[in-house]
Amino acid sequence: MAWGRTRLGWRGPGGPSSARAGRPRYPTQVTDLNRSVITLSCLDRPGIVHAVSGAIVEAAGNITESQQYSSPDTGRFFLRVQVEHASAPDRLRAALDPVAQSFDGVLGLDASGRPVRTLILVSAAPHCLNALLSRQRQGALPIEVPLVLSNHEGLADLAAFYGVPFEHHPVFPKTKAWMEDRIRQVLADYDIELVVLARYMQIISPGLCADLAGRAINIHHSFLPGFKGANPYRQAHARGVKLIGATAHFVTADLDEGPIIAQNVTPAGHSKSVAQLVESGRDIESATLAEAVRLFAEHRILLDGVRTVVFS
Amino acid sequence: MAWGRTRLGWRGPGGPSSARAGRPRYPTQVTDLNRSVITLSCLDRPGIVHAVSGAIVEAAGNITESQQYSSPDTGRFFLRVQVEHASAPDRLRAALDPVAQSFDGVLGLDASGRPVRTLILVSAAPHCLNALLSRQRQGALPIEVPLVLSNHEGLADLAAFYGVPFEHHPVFPKTKAWMEDRIRQVLADYDIELVVLARYMQIISPGLCADLAGRAINIHHSFLPGFKGANPYRQAHARGVKLIGATAHFVTADLDEGPIIAQNVTPAGHSKSVAQLVESGRDIESATLAEAVRLFAEHRILLDGVRTVVFS
Amino acid sequence: MAWGRTRLGWRGPGGPSSARAGRPRYPTQVTDLNRSVITLSCLDRPGIVHAVSGAIVEAAGNITESQQYSSPDTGRFFLRVQVEHASAPDRLRAALDPVAQSFDGVLGLDASGRPVRTLILVSAAPHCLNALLSRQRQGALPIEVPLVLSNHEGLADLAAFYGVPFEHHPVFPKTKAWMEDRIRQVLADYDIELVVLARYMQIISPGLCADLAGRAINIHHSFLPGFKGANPYRQAHARGVKLIGATAHFVTADLDEGPIIAQNVTPAGHSKSVAQLVESGRDIESATLAEAVRLFAEHRILLDGVRTVVFS
Amino acid sequence: MAWGRTRLGWRGPGGPSSARAGRPRYPTQVTDLNRSVITLSCLDRPGIVHAVSGAIVEAAGNITESQQYSSPDTGRFFLRVQVEHASAPDRLRAALDPVAQSFDGVLGLDASGRPVRTLILVSAAPHCLNALLSRQRQGALPIEVPLVLSNHEGLADLAAFYGVPFEHHPVFPKTKAWMEDRIRQVLADYDIELVVLARYMQIISPGLCADLAGRAINIHHSFLPGFKGANPYRQAHARGVKLIGATAHFVTADLDEGPIIAQNVTPAGHSKSVAQLVESGRDIESATLAEAVRLFAEHRILLDGVRTVVFS
Repeated sequence: MAWGRTRLGWRGPGGPSSARAGRPRYPTQVTDLNRSVITLSCLDRPGIVHAVSGAIVEAAGNITESQQYSSPDTGRFFLRVQVEHASAPDRLRAALDPVAQSFDGVLGLDASGRPVRTLILVSAAPHCLNALLSRQRQGALPIEVPLVLSNHEGLADLAAFYGVPFEHHPVFPKTKAWMEDRIRQVLADYDIELVVLARYMQIISPGLCADLAGRAINIHHSFLPGFKGANPYRQAHARGVKLIGATAHFVTADLDEGPIIAQNVTPAGHSKSVAQLVESGRDIESATLAEAVRLFAEHRILLDGVRTVVFS
Repeated sequence: MAWGRTRLGWRGPGGPSSARAGRPRYPTQVTDLNRSVITLSCLDRPGIVHAVSGAIVEAAGNITESQQYSSPDTGRFFLRVQVEHASAPDRLRAALDPVAQSFDGVLGLDASGRPVRTLILVSAAPHCLNALLSRQRQGALPIEVPLVLSNHEGLADLAAFYGVPFEHHPVFPKTKAWMEDRIRQVLADYDIELVVLARYMQIISPGLCADLAGRAINIHHSFLPGFKGANPYRQAHARGVKLIGATAHFVTADLDEGPIIAQNVTPAGHSKSVAQLVESGRDIESATLAEAVRLFAEHRILLDGVRTVVFS
Repeated sequence: MAWGRTRLGWRGPGGPSSARAGRPRYPTQVTDLNRSVITLSCLDRPGIVHAVSGAIVEAAGNITESQQYSSPDTGRFFLRVQVEHASAPDRLRAALDPVAQSFDGVLGLDASGRPVRTLILVSAAPHCLNALLSRQRQGALPIEVPLVLSNHEGLADLAAFYGVPFEHHPVFPKTKAWMEDRIRQVLADYDIELVVLARYMQIISPGLCADLAGRAINIHHSFLPGFKGANPYRQAHARGVKLIGATAHFVTADLDEGPIIAQNVTPAGHSKSVAQLVESGRDIESATLAEAVRLFAEHRILLDGVRTVVFS
Repeated sequence: MAWGRTRLGWRGPGGPSSARAGRPRYPTQVTDLNRSVITLSCLDRPGIVHAVSGAIVEAAGNITESQQYSSPDTGRFFLRVQVEHASAPDRLRAALDPVAQSFDGVLGLDASGRPVRTLILVSAAPHCLNALLSRQRQGALPIEVPLVLSNHEGLADLAAFYGVPFEHHPVFPKTKAWMEDRIRQVLADYDIELVVLARYMQIISPGLCADLAGRAINIHHSFLPGFKGANPYRQAHARGVKLIGATAHFVTADLDEGPIIAQNVTPAGHSKSVAQLVESGRDIESATLAEAVRLFAEHRILLDGVRTVVFS
């Protein structure tokens, strides 16, 4: 499956991306100066940074930015490094692969700024889709979007404006499985690396959630305190909350309980109606989802069990 | 009961504060220019503002600041007005009382900036007490604090530094009722208008909560989403929240579910330990509690059922 | 001139809007319940609120929201009131006009939520235009945009997507006066009430600035401290600022010194390049400009000399 | 001079701190597990991280947190590393010193969490001093304060409450030089590492500024845009700014133009008087100064020409 190969291609240590047919993501020719992003996670023990930096020196690379974190909760170590290197990317990978293997780590290697292939799922609300595509067009979000998939047709014109193909299929209880099959097919056909639920108002089945683990981002409203059940903005209004917020998180089978990527809030006075809270919510949702997608596309998010390590 | 009389004295329409023996709060002599704060809440119907402004004109007053709100949820109307008036306060009250009665409203009238008599309850943590007393000393918080009451002796020196009397009584299951009796006695003896639970780590009985309704402010941590149960900072860390916050609210028998007055958040990255989250929590708790107390002392908070109307 | 008439129509006390030919803005028929926004500014003296609220009662109106402010700097009084009234708008105006005249005040009266006729000027950057038009389409911004006028053709497709007519005219030193004539013509032909400079990179002549006083909003970057001269983001980067911000203000002949409407900031760490600061600047500019336009369109901004009174 | 030796002691590569008589800062005995902070700045070239991490491995250390930055402006490289090491600190230093020398770098080495010896200068305003000492007492700020020095006596009791010696000397034009001599003497006698101007309302002479370069932190108000000259809050009020802020920066002879460490803002509505702006300013100044001092005490600030690199 392309999705699986994709994952191995730039995240896993299993094989060079050049082995993949079709869409080579990583340039293989020697240019004057390549810029790459390296990520590594493994059990923490002495010498990891020394070994990685040694591999970089070996590949004639220079570290321009680096962040790392040792998790006291899980005992794991996380590293993100940006390098400039006169060598070919394959040489950098060849130097790093043995290091990752010796620490039994998960290695990621990608060209800095390469657009990440992203499938966006939407329903009727345009604000999140607009936030993503407008930032993408302005060069502020390194993604490419081969398809927007929806259970409504309402956002077809917005996608068309940004020149993005759009497909819609009504989803009813009996077509739900069909839609998920279509999603899987798109993942494979378009070599998708990231799925964004941009206010996609359908529950994803546990099976698909599992397949998308760590690769699908959802956005939802958040309040202090949280409110369970239907119509949370109405509940928030009824309780008179003074802040409303949004949380972007990875999709898991536990609804809205996946690892948190980004959170923001905005003030909400007593005079705001439910409709005005919903409007404020749109702004904060758009900004928070766009932030989370940027962090993902720049390989700044690593998973530490149910928590995220975000090298922002 | 002094507490009851206090309430009538400056909030209720029942009688002039001059009727109260002991501590006259509101100056009765004519000065060059008095400054007063008027609050009114009643069922909404046409003509309220016209009637109130007519009473102000009658008392030779001029409105310098005014805010109002009609609640679509409860059908109630809320008003806060600051006035300058060459007349004596009693004349302003005499003009306003019939208006409040005709609308069956709850009238508040107080001298602008008069320090509100405040009892602070504490346990071992100093940050909230320090935030309140340091702001009070700098003239940034219009309260006077005749007593700090605690179930620990640890903060005695902090109270002493600010020249505030301090009492402590260990609280065990069998002394709990005794402590609440002492609180009630202090409310009466010191003519207390506001009770602040500044990290007071004891549960208040439902009976005392009911007596303190709308007059007691508590502070607690808040997260998106909320976490129930023990050690919430540990839970927040485990979930990897990106924001931690604090909520100041009125005390009710429903633990931490009283009407919300103020909320703030501060960022929390993955690298923060539980101890560091607790430290950040202290700062945000201190600031949020001080904000809520200032709003109360300036008569900017009115209750609309379980919501607050905050004229900030 | 239509612009002048427009101003009198809903802002000035001079005449009912029904006198205006062509585009009646304010409904004249009696409906079940009308909702209006009243604004008034005048020299402060006792009795203003009483007189205004009396006129509202006379017109069978009920105040649902009200804010006012007395400026100690200028001695002026500012009022914004939302009312529901079973009477016709003309009856409300007939009741208010004599009051405004007796206080020598500037009266504004408009239907709540009526879209304000807005001309948007742009150059090459799409982010502010996109922020305005996407919010307008979602119903979050009560404006209607009969024309986008530009000195570049680059944003034609963005305007087209939102169904807004677009005109572009290259501006050179010798065509500058022609462009300003075209702007004036559009103001008249389209009965424009608000001009938004959404990253319009041309200096407006002092004469046009004067004609647009209080009706044209500009957005620009802001830093702590401010930087004069060219390429401010580069200067801000060189100084290592930790916050970058945006200010929305009314256009005056003093470049970037007009009355401030809204300001926001966003963090900027040391690792952000000039290009990344510019990107962050885009987001904060978009949000701040949209906020300022919404405040204007809801008649929440009144001018107090060189300061704004913002009833948010 | 003790100050100079201090600098060499834990920042410079020149000599081990054990060479200093009197106050050994860095423990020399072998404990079960030491925790250290390493900082390094040098011209950027390949191999730095590899060399440093090699030295850490050699000293049986493990990296628990690391941040680095390559400045495109100056071509310099900056590194901050936290390590746990079973070895003695001297062994870690012995391993690192040759690396720092080979890259011609400035090495800093200190025990994690060691309180930094801090002289606080104050005048009459208590808010910043209170913010620093209350956080220090709660364990939230790793400083020790052997002396508070003032040109007024007003804050003597605040210092006494926190058990900190307090000296005051009136400063007039002809005693100004004497006061600076006293400051220099205190730097030497108390082995001071950091000087904090906590609203110290005296201008420091260029000579003393030079001696304190990179070791003295000041706090001042900040606005968008900046205002020059006297009474900036009055100017900010007159312009109707919507945000007021504070900047903490290193002291230089250019008044208020030193490298920026931290900046924060708080909203300011039109109704705030100058006095209320000043009050808001106090809160934001206190919080921002405390943040800057914490960053310094944790060795999170490195200088890149006139900019700071802040590893927060």
